[in-house]
Amino acid sequence: MAKIADLYYKADPFQIIEEGFDPNYAKVSESIFSLGNEYMGVRGYFEEGYSSDSLVGSYFNGIYERAEVSSQNYKGIIDYTEFMVNSVDYFYTKVSLDGEQLDLAKVKINQFRRYLDLKTGVLKRSFIWELQNGKQIEIMFERFLSMSDACMAGQRIRFLPLNFDGKLNVSLGLDFTRPHYMTGKNYFTCVEGSAEEDSAAEKNSLTEEISKAEENSMVEENSQAEEKSLALEDSAKDDSLFLIGTTKNTGQKIASMCKIDVPNSATGNIEKEENKIAIAYQIELKKQRETVITKVICNLVCKKKDESEYKKFNVRCEEKWNNRANFHYDQLLAESIMWWKEKWKESDIVIEGDELNQQGIRYCIFQMHQTYHGTEAGTNIGAKGLTGEAYSGNAFWDTETYCLPFYIFNNLKAAKNLLMFRYETLEEAKLRAKELDCKGAFYPIATISGRECCSLWQHSSLQLQASTGVAYGIWSYVKLTNDVEFLHQYGIPMLIEISRMLVTRGDYNADGTKYGYYGVMGPDEFQMMVNHNCYTNVLGKLTLKFTYDVMKQLKEEGLSEQEIVNRYQVSSEEIEDFKKKADDMWIPYHADTLLFEQHQGYFDLPHVDVDAIPIEEFPLYHHWTYDRIYRNDMIKQPDVLMMMLLFNSNFTIDQLKANYEFYEPRCIHESSLSPSVHSILASQLKKHKEAYQFFGFATRMDLDNYNRNTDEGLHTTSIAAAWMNIVYGFGGMRADGELLSFTPSIPETWTSYSFRIGYRGNVILVEVSKKEATFQVLEGSDVLVKIYENEYTLDQSKLKLEIPC
Amino acid sequence: MAKIADLYYKADPFQIIEEGFDPNYAKVSESIFSLGNEYMGVRGYFEEGYSSDSLVGSYFNGIYERAEVSSQNYKGIIDYTEFMVNSVDYFYTKVSLDGEQLDLAKVKINQFRRYLDLKTGVLKRSFIWELQNGKQIEIMFERFLSMSDACMAGQRIRFLPLNFDGKLNVSLGLDFTRPHYMTGKNYFTCVEGSAEEDSAAEKNSLTEEISKAEENSMVEENSQAEEKSLALEDSAKDDSLFLIGTTKNTGQKIASMCKIDVPNSATGNIEKEENKIAIAYQIELKKQRETVITKVICNLVCKKKDESEYKKFNVRCEEKWNNRANFHYDQLLAESIMWWKEKWKESDIVIEGDELNQQGIRYCIFQMHQTYHGTEAGTNIGAKGLTGEAYSGNAFWDTETYCLPFYIFNNLKAAKNLLMFRYETLEEAKLRAKELDCKGAFYPIATISGRECCSLWQHSSLQLQASTGVAYGIWSYVKLTNDVEFLHQYGIPMLIEISRMLVTRGDYNADGTKYGYYGVMGPDEFQMMVNHNCYTNVLGKLTLKFTYDVMKQLKEEGLSEQEIVNRYQVSSEEIEDFKKKADDMWIPYHADTLLFEQHQGYFDLPHVDVDAIPIEEFPLYHHWTYDRIYRNDMIKQPDVLMMMLLFNSNFTIDQLKANYEFYEPRCIHESSLSPSVHSILASQLKKHKEAYQFFGFATRMDLDNYNRNTDEGLHTTSIAAAWMNIVYGFGGMRADGELLSFTPSIPETWTSYSFRIGYRGNVILVEVSKKEATFQVLEGSDVLVKIYENEYTLDQSKLKLEIPC
Repeated sequence: MAKIADLYYKADPFQIIEEGFDPNYAKVSESIFSLGNEYMGVRGYFEEGYSSDSLVGSYFNGIYERAEVSSQNYKGIIDYTEFMVNSVDYFYTKVSLDGEQLDLAKVKINQFRRYLDLKTGVLKRSFIWELQNGKQIEIMFERFLSMSDACMAGQRIRFLPLNFDGKLNVSLGLDFTRPHYMTGKNYFTCVEGSAEEDSAAEKNSLTEEISKAEENSMVEENSQAEEKSLALEDSAKDDSLFLIGTTKNTGQKIASMCKIDVPNSATGNIEKEENKIAIAYQIELKKQRETVITKVICNLVCKKKDESEYKKFNVRCEEKWNNRANFHYDQLLAESIMWWKEKWKESDIVIEGDELNQQGIRYCIFQMHQTYHGTEAGTNIGAKGLTGEAYSGNAFWDTETYCLPFYIFNNLKAAKNLLMFRYETLEEAKLRAKELDCKGAFYPIATISGRECCSLWQHSSLQLQASTGVAYGIWSYVKLTNDVEFLHQYGIPMLIEISRMLVTRGDYNADGTKYGYYGVMGPDEFQMMVNHNCYTNVLGKLTLKFTYDVMKQLKEEGLSEQEIVNRYQVSSEEIEDFKKKADDMWIPYHADTLLFEQHQGYFDLPHVDVDAIPIEEFPLYHHWTYDRIYRNDMIKQPDVLMMMLLFNSNFTIDQLKANYEFYEPRCIHESSLSPSVHSILASQLKKHKEAYQFFGFATRMDLDNYNRNTDEGLHTTSIAAAWMNIVYGFGGMRADGELLSFTPSIPETWTSYSFRIGYRGNVILVEVSKKEATFQVLEGSDVLVKIYENEYTLDQSKLKLEIPC
Repeated sequence: MAKIADLYYKADPFQIIEEGFDPNYAKVSESIFSLGNEYMGVRGYFEEGYSSDSLVGSYFNGIYERAEVSSQNYKGIIDYTEFMVNSVDYFYTKVSLDGEQLDLAKVKINQFRRYLDLKTGVLKRSFIWELQNGKQIEIMFERFLSMSDACMAGQRIRFLPLNFDGKLNVSLGLDFTRPHYMTGKNYFTCVEGSAEEDSAAEKNSLTEEISKAEENSMVEENSQAEEKSLALEDSAKDDSLFLIGTTKNTGQKIASMCKIDVPNSATGNIEKEENKIAIAYQIELKKQRETVITKVICNLVCKKKDESEYKKFNVRCEEKWNNRANFHYDQLLAESIMWWKEKWKESDIVIEGDELNQQGIRYCIFQMHQTYHGTEAGTNIGAKGLTGEAYSGNAFWDTETYCLPFYIFNNLKAAKNLLMFRYETLEEAKLRAKELDCKGAFYPIATISGRECCSLWQHSSLQLQASTGVAYGIWSYVKLTNDVEFLHQYGIPMLIEISRMLVTRGDYNADGTKYGYYGVMGPDEFQMMVNHNCYTNVLGKLTLKFTYDVMKQLKEEGLSEQEIVNRYQVSSEEIEDFKKKADDMWIPYHADTLLFEQHQGYFDLPHVDVDAIPIEEFPLYHHWTYDRIYRNDMIKQPDVLMMMLLFNSNFTIDQLKANYEFYEPRCIHESSLSPSVHSILASQLKKHKEAYQFFGFATRMDLDNYNRNTDEGLHTTSIAAAWMNIVYGFGGMRADGELLSFTPSIPETWTSYSFRIGYRGNVILVEVSKKEATFQVLEGSDVLVKIYENEYTLDQSKLKLEIPC
């Protein structure tokens, strides 16, 4: 089924531009113009309100709510789930002029232009509002989330009356009243939920100030608070607001505070509603004179329902609140732009001769950095990042298999933090293993807090790839960074627990000749309850072997058995058992055809000609009865091929070719991650045309709304795959072998492209033109790599190699 | 895991006796002393109220409510389910004396005795109530449901004051206030729900009377109604009550009316509450003189939410109401007892030398007749009959495979009605097939109204045995009755639609050499999403072949192709396709070992030693994680062996032996139907000891509460299997071959046993003693049968044959 681009935004190498507003794209644009800084994310909604279809979404990484799942009362099936909850609209704004309310669903506007600058992370929107009385005013909204100080955000509004003097009404505030879109419910309590309730005895004057402020819905105005009408000074004045929302079931807190700078001529009134606070200003406008309002926002969160955490949170709130005089829009923005400048220096990909893909890949890189960059431990990457509510903000095994490579080569701190998330949730994974009658740790297939959130047992109980994915992540990270300290302190405890699970979840077949996993669902979610899924068995084998090798290495380094027991609570019998199960693991491989069988019996399944399925039957989940999807050889996404990408150097090119040619025609690519994997392997097989076809929408999946569901949020993990598609695909980089290696090729339509990767403290630039590939260390020292089967030591000089035909 | 008898009731050949009341058995006894007449069922609860744990359950066959199922939003998964709803307590009674309330959880009683007479279907309960003031009164409750006029029931209460004269307070009434036990909700509206609402224009004086009576909560007293206090005549008087309840979501109606006969000295007051109406009597008691109260109840139902059905229902209500003067307890009882007398003549099984099994098998036969006997079309047999709420009153494929044989040999009308239920719900099954992307008819795995009620897709979408079970039922019924008219009018339309489903649900394997069913769950519910389940393929093959043969026969009888098309809307191409798929059906059979493989790949599954599973891990569903149950060769119930029982003559004794010896050790018998199947086949294999061991609890599963869940209701379909266990097991009867055949044996501990079967209009008596088996036609003409490999013509003389060693 062909996916068709829906070109709406203007092409530009470093900006995403919407010229003229089409209401049909309102929600898609809200997703596209999402801002994020890992800590929080906000959709690109019209902050002044939009009475037509809109998802006013504002999310914090790790702030979630719970929903009961109607349990089927079987052991191992979860009874409640968690979802990232829609929270405070800190850009809340209302604008009215002469009794007319600014609402782009209703008023007349022209010269609408919205643009996101990928270089700086600033989103701007401008238009001319033509009132019914003929007045015209140009308005520009600007916003950013700080990358350098993640709790901070800025909003700036400029008003330019073109043909009149007059009074404008503007309200700015903090709004916790928005419902969670997926459930229609609001999950916040703003008055009673303050953290100090149970610690009154220990309050000092500052916490008292906060709690008093909370009780008064947190209004402070220039330290000279007046409830009803503000006495305004001659100089430009600033007003401040402060509201704390507490999630109803999880007891997490968001403190949202802001300082508003308004012109000295403005008069303001406080507006209070339940869960909302704002100041309504009246501002004098002068014809052809620009009036600017800025709002600097600080959002602090407390993720744990815990007295001592609440206290610490209060202290942090106090500090920020007391320091609000130092909230400066321009300074904050300048620091954030500096952050972006550094990142682009390390991560940019330049494509010449393909403006759309140039824009697309930069948008992907921008989103990857926005979504995650290692700000703090304890968070992960939701399937939609922080841009929407689909997939409930849950992180999947995509993190380790699709996202981690990007971070390993672009932001090591972020890469490590992603793995630390798994370490910090190891106890949850151990509980989950117990629920599933296993020893060790069984990592959740979907999670926010570490707890399994997938209510479909056929996924949450049968998919082992979250657990083996963590092991793969540790293996990749350690291999590429030599971070032995991480391995010893965090990696080994995880590897041991995962291995324990692997040797208890597996079974031997009837005659004891084959060890492997029964009743599983591999990466391909169209084959359920299968035995000896090749991917699962191979990943299981390599995980067990890796754990064994690591432990053996420790011994070789002189650690005694007893020291190992003391440090890791694992006996040598157990370690030997890991090896035995790894050795006994059965891999369904057919030497005659070079084919790996996706699972035992897969080759005998009924064949479906996927090209013959009518286009109107897609997506199949909506048009085919649930069980029918599972009864044939059609696959949803790469499974054997995924394995061959992850451990690429383990397979010969002939094996890859045979399996690619067998499985690709059976794949319907219903996962957005599927085409990139196929594109990368097609490049390796020199099927360049096919590689470029699969690449097709990788970089522009959301910009061109290929799946027609960008309105729900961005396909964040696909965005990671788009990066891999260029670096691993056309660049031919492989990181799983002895040496980092490259086999660059270039798509026919491109003039040249280049990418940069960070590797062991060095930044390597790879430039590929029609004829030659150039390698250069931009920062750092010599690096030994393999290029087209030969080894080279890269340094700061340019190594030029001809591209073979 | 050993199942252990919990002997509580006294052994007796024709009665179930409880002597002395043990509150721990309160709910078990409520199930054991359930009465039913197919139309309605009522648990043996204490009608006077019991303030300790109790399930006051009163059910009507086909009266159900709906509950939403939290849908997983995949095609083919149901979004609401239906359950048989707890309804009116028409035995509602309250008794008090000198301010003390009769409540067996609180008062002092002795000489408690409760007994159910299986010969007559009368349940009696008597005890002496000793009041705190020293007064003693003997009370006897008696009840029955009429077998001859199924809407009727009777209640009689006798009071015998042993040592005092005094005034007794007794209320009797109709109570729709009881909650459905499983949900805790009440589903009836009694005031607004009357059927005549929308047909006021057409009401005649009688319907007006009804509607007026409804508005007044349906109170009529001796045609001289007085609201508060009744004027009482000298002669014995009768009072009447009438209440109509309507189910809230399904709009079904139950009209409950009763006539109460009280002694002429009684005075009565009407008591009204929402959904309840009663008359509170004060009765003069004389020492050592018995006072009797009788209540004759008539319950009418309207099963369809439909204006014209409501009208017809009103008319029926009027007729009954107007005729209530003719409600006579003794006459009704006498007619019902006559019905039972006839039934026992046809169906009795006599066992000498084993009092417990004698009682047990008669209890089973009694319950089979109570549960179903063909009163009216459109009903089926719930897994718990009408005795409790577990399994939601849903009927399963047990109907055709376990219950139908009993009815075919004991009550042909009932047998035909069961099949007619499937015919009447054919349209629902066609809709279900469509939901599941099949053509034809896909019968529900669990149903009340014909609609699929199982919310677990892994059962409702994967189990084809409901559909093939219907075909098996038609095949058996037609084979044994020669009811060609049924076959032509009802059987063929079902067979064609089932066959259509079978040729669209199936698939060919990759190389096109094997046709069969992928992604199924066979009878053994511990193997899910398997391919080529042997039972499913064999039943599919035989169903297709049977359909083909029947259609071929029609042609041979002279019906032209066009006539077939006109009559059955089926083309000869389609019929040929049935044959082709039947021919191509792959049966996983291993000629070397004579083993049928339960499904493709089953023999290679990890082996579990079921005897090594600790007893505390049972039932496994509660102690093993859900998916773990499915990952090995352990089976829950017979699958291949079930097939070998249903089509017994298709297999050699060597095949049977090989498969029995392979599969039995892998079976944990977690289904209550499992032991009987194994017992029957063990008899056939002359493994007499094993046969008797498996027979063990078949007849007394509920009487001795083997599964410790009889409190939830009786294992009605197991009861059917108990009958098969004797007739098919020890009697060795087989009905699937060319001739009806017998190979009687006798358990070591028995002196003799005999059973009767109805066969083609004849009643055959089979008597088996230690040495010989005697065959005799009691009613009817000569019957050709096969006994121990030889053919005999049975007639009214006794044929005696020695039992071979």
